[in-house]
Formats: sequence, C-alpha cells, structure tokens
Amino acid sequence: MNETYTAAFYRGNRTFTIEKRSMSSPRPEEVSIRVNYCGICGTDMHVFHGNMDERIGFERVIGHEMSGTVVAVGKDCYNIEPGNKVVVRPLDHCGDCPACHAGLNHICHKLKCLGLDTHGAMQEIWTVPAHTVHVLPDDIQMDLAALIEPLAVACHDVRLSALQKGEDVLVIGGGPIGALVALMARNAGGKVVISEINPHRSEVLKKLNFDIVNPSEHDLVAEINKRTSGKGIDVVFEVSGSQAGVDAMTAVAATRARLVLVAIHAKKPKIDLFQFFWRELELMGVRVYEPEDYEKAIDIIANGKVDVDSLITDIRPLSEIQSAFEDLDQNPSAMKTLITMGN
Amino acid sequence: MNETYTAAFYRGNRTFTIEKRSMSSPRPEEVSIRVNYCGICGTDMHVFHGNMDERIGFERVIGHEMSGTVVAVGKDCYNIEPGNKVVVRPLDHCGDCPACHAGLNHICHKLKCLGLDTHGAMQEIWTVPAHTVHVLPDDIQMDLAALIEPLAVACHDVRLSALQKGEDVLVIGGGPIGALVALMARNAGGKVVISEINPHRSEVLKKLNFDIVNPSEHDLVAEINKRTSGKGIDVVFEVSGSQAGVDAMTAVAATRARLVLVAIHAKKPKIDLFQFFWRELELMGVRVYEPEDYEKAIDIIANGKVDVDSLITDIRPLSEIQSAFEDLDQNPSAMKTLITMGN
Repeated sequence: MNETYTAAFYRGNRTFTIEKRSMSSPRPEEVSIRVNYCGICGTDMHVFHGNMDERIGFERVIGHEMSGTVVAVGKDCYNIEPGNKVVVRPLDHCGDCPACHAGLNHICHKLKCLGLDTHGAMQEIWTVPAHTVHVLPDDIQMDLAALIEPLAVACHDVRLSALQKGEDVLVIGGGPIGALVALMARNAGGKVVISEINPHRSEVLKKLNFDIVNPSEHDLVAEINKRTSGKGIDVVFEVSGSQAGVDAMTAVAATRARLVLVAIHAKKPKIDLFQFFWRELELMGVRVYEPEDYEKAIDIIANGKVDVDSLITDIRPLSEIQSAFEDLDQNPSAMKTLITMGN
Repeated sequence: MNETYTAAFYRGNRTFTIEKRSMSSPRPEEVSIRVNYCGICGTDMHVFHGNMDERIGFERVIGHEMSGTVVAVGKDCYNIEPGNKVVVRPLDHCGDCPACHAGLNHICHKLKCLGLDTHGAMQEIWTVPAHTVHVLPDDIQMDLAALIEPLAVACHDVRLSALQKGEDVLVIGGGPIGALVALMARNAGGKVVISEINPHRSEVLKKLNFDIVNPSEHDLVAEINKRTSGKGIDVVFEVSGSQAGVDAMTAVAATRARLVLVAIHAKKPKIDLFQFFWRELELMGVRVYEPEDYEKAIDIIANGKVDVDSLITDIRPLSEIQSAFEDLDQNPSAMKTLITMGN
C-alpha cells in the first residue's frame, strides 16, 4: 500500500490539524480499518481543553467511539477479514499485572487506551491490535454503530449494578452517557427517573419518554419519596461528576441501595458515609467495559432494542473537526456529535 | 414479684447513679433476665461524653452487650424458660416500613436500640421483648458470652464482605471491634494485617498472633505492597472512623476490593472516588447484625473457635460503674471492660 490518507492531529492549544499519512501494512497481529464514523466523547473534550496534554502530547490522533470496515489484516489474525464491518474495544492490556492475572484486563494496572495513549480513530485508516476488534452483523447501520462504545459503558454499568426488573432507578446527569445508562436500565426492567438541569437535554430525554426531575427547580428527595412511597431509589447511577451528584446519591438511596459511580471524580468530594451505615448502602466504581459488554451493546444496536438514534445531534465531516469541537464546547446542550470520514 | 433490684441510671454530665427499682412481671411477650455481665461499648462512651443526651435523656439505663439468665417469661413466650442462659439482640423494629417489608428488620426506618432508646442492661434485672432473646448452650462461659453482641457485629461485617479463603485483609483500627473483625476474618481464612497506632493495643493484638503495622511509624501502602507483591488488599475493614482511615482504605485497595465501613462516620470525610473508578472498588455500609450473625457468634464463643478472652481487660462490679467509665475514658489502650452484676 503506497497511498496516503487523512488524519486529524491534536496539536495542543485547542487545535487540530488535518494531515496526510502514508499507508502501511498491518503487522502480523494488527488489523487496518477504514473508519466510517467516530463520535466525540467527553474525554475527547478534556483533550481539547488541554487537560490531558501531559498524557497524550501534541502529536496524537484521538478518537475511540467508532465504526469502520476492515481493509487489511495481519498474517496472524483469525476470524477477521477485509470487508468486515467492525468496532474497536479501545483497550490494550499488559497481560502480566495482578488485575490481568485475575482476568480483569479492563482494569489492567498498565492499561493503554487507544485514542489517548496510542493513535485513535479520527483518521481515515486506523490500525489496531486484532484482539480489540469486534465484528458486526453486515446489516448494521454504521452511524448508530459508532455508539456501540459508549453504549458498552452503559451495559457494563447496568450489568455490575445487578439491576432487577421493577427496581427504582435514578440517573443523575442526562448527558450522552447518562442517557445511554437510562436506556439500558429501562431495557433491564428498571423504573427510571433522570435528574437533569439542562432544559435542552431534558427535551431530548422527554422524547425518549423518560421521567425527568430538574433538581434546580424541584426538591429531588421529595420527588423520589413521592414516586417510591418513601422507600427511596434501589439503584443510583452518578453520571454528573459533581459534589451535588454525590450528595444526591446518598440522600435518595433506599435500604441496601447500590450507588454506581459512572462519572470520573478527579477531585475528592465529601461523602455522607453515615448514610452508608444507616441504610447499608453499597457504592461501586465501574470502569469502561469487558468483551461481553461490547457483545451486548452490538446486539442492542444491531437489533434496534433501544433508541440511540435520537442521541445523535450532529454529523460533521473530518475536515470540520476543528469547528465540530468548538461548536460542542459552545453548546453543552448537544448530545452526540459524530465525525464522518466521508467514505 | 415485690422485690427491688439495682440499676445504674445515666443522669447527664458524665454521671451515673445507682438506684433501686421495683420488680414487675414481664408482659405477655416479654422476658425478664437476671443480667450476669454487661460490656461497655464505644456507643456507651459516647453517651458518657454527653454526645447522645438529646436522644436518650437523663433517665436512662444504658448497656446492650450482655449475658444473663432468664428469671421470668410472659405468657405468650415460647421456647424460652426460666433458667435459660441468654443474650439479647438489642434491636426492636417497627415491622411496617420499607426495610421491614424487605426483610431487613435490622435497618428498620424506625429502629429502636435497646439500651439507648429504651432501658438497657446496666441493671440486675432487664426486661426485653421475647423476639430479641437468643438462648445459649448451658455450658457457655458467661463472661465471654457478654462479647457475643460485639462479635455478632464482626460476624455481620465479615459475612457481608463475602471474604474468601486466602484473600488479603486489612483492618484499619485495632480496638475491640477491630480486633473481633480481625479474629473473624482470620477464622474465615483471610490473611489479616491490622493497622493500629496505639502500642498498648498492638501488644494485645500481637499476643493474638496478628501482623500489625503502625502507620505513624511505617508507610502503610508500602508495607501492604510488600506483603501482596503490589496487588493490594482484597477486603478492607475501616474501623477507625477517621479521615486517615478513609484515605488509607482506597490507597491500599486491590482491583475490585471490597471496602467495609465498620466505623460510624458522623462527619462527611473526603473520599478518593477516582480510585473507585480506577480499580472498580466497592464500598459497603454495614449496620449491626441479623439473627444469623448472632447464631454464628454464639457458636464461635460457645465452642471456643476464636480467642476473645484476651480482649477482656477489666471486670468491675455495677457499684463501680462510675469509675469504670472514668477509667476507660483515661485509658484508650484498654480493650473491653465488663460490668458484673455480681450474681
């Protein structure tokens, strides 16, 4: 392969440059993929804001929420062939730390995230380790398939919560991940309430028939008590990453509720540990996904089991990546923006 | 019954008075017990310090860690008779709240704690609801039986932690409850380290063959990494109730560790929620005990399966309750003081 292809490099200072790269053949255990769509994730926005410069540098192609079509496979790859529609589970583990030895590759002590620690999917051709590739059904819709990665996060979170049919669920924060968690929680039989202060996001969520409480307008605890006859919430998903979210999750919790920390809390918030004693609460950290969560997310999207279509608020060509990030930055009401590589 | 018996009343201002009460017959569903021993618990020290005056008032007999012998039973009591050696599970539930309906009486929304919300065991005769009574084997040692209540706390905590044989355990804080948790964790097959700063308590724990780290002298995380080849601790019991304890529990945790909150944290500490995400940690609040935890604790003590004898550092008559509390207050190194009713 001697052709060139286009890639978007993050260069620091809120800037992407579009550049040409030379095609090269995949190594024995690698797969080269023609990227169709790549979503912009909250983590990508953190990169754009310069918060991760130290980790990723200024010569990085980012992006990890993608769908694509295989163009070449290394000689040691099995069960993947050119033409396959695929998604990538963008995690590369060391295989030799205590977490890997315990079978928990996704919490590897030396985990590399593709699209952050290595180049990502904001380019026409993406070459990745074969073990990260999941093959899709041929008739899947490729724009929706770009939501498999964030949906797999939701599948992981709902699975680990052990949510039972009929349980009361509160999702704190109705952004893209919160909405996907709410969809999967409802799919699992939960009675879902979403706490969201942004009226534009609430509009999107209402179209998905969710019960929304705006905690800046209503007393969230009172609203929950009203809906649950004073019992409280069985499973809380904290997706806001805020002190207010941490306060709310303990305040609404029923006896032996499970509180699932979906958001990443970089600061150390204060937490009402007395409530943990008082009601025997359980708090669980959750991180990315395992292969079975990807398979679940693929099944959900391939078979239209939840409506993720409504969450795609914008699709932009790779050439407009700079303005796509700038627009998202100006418009916190938006849900999911996809970049299309135009193929 | 027209006799009188002696009771110690908490009168506020760090003061107990010894007074006579008249004997009365138990009501239909009550049992009257001649108390043999009653331990002084951390909660009782909180009462002594005046921290619970608003809840319990100044006409209260406290005490709930007891052993005794039945002297009379109400007409509607079954399977309990005069002469039975017994302990009391000092919890009275409402039977009609969401927790009770879920079968979790010990987290009843209106839970009454005997010895705080009603009179307790620091008296010669204690009359309690029959449903709170557990009958003991006749050959049990009654001073050790007074440790069944705190041991049941440890049984509950270790049971809910789902500790597996061979797992690495850290107990943060080696006071009476920490020591009992450590004993039960070792009984369940855990490899136990205790973090304790008090050298006198460490001496008691060393005699029980525990591995002690003093975090004021050694780097606890480094010590744990050394002992676990960098894996970290699988099950942490936080028994210190301190910010330092909350910091330590996340710092030492292995991937998917369970962190068990044994201490009651009245203040809201800061907590490293990032570590919860990073290693998929689980934090669990635990509260008192359920009937099966009492049965387990009875079996352990009746059959000498763990050495609780070493934890009893002092036995004092009821007439010396005032000085017993004062001495404990001056001597944080002590483990368990029992009050004997002298019968």
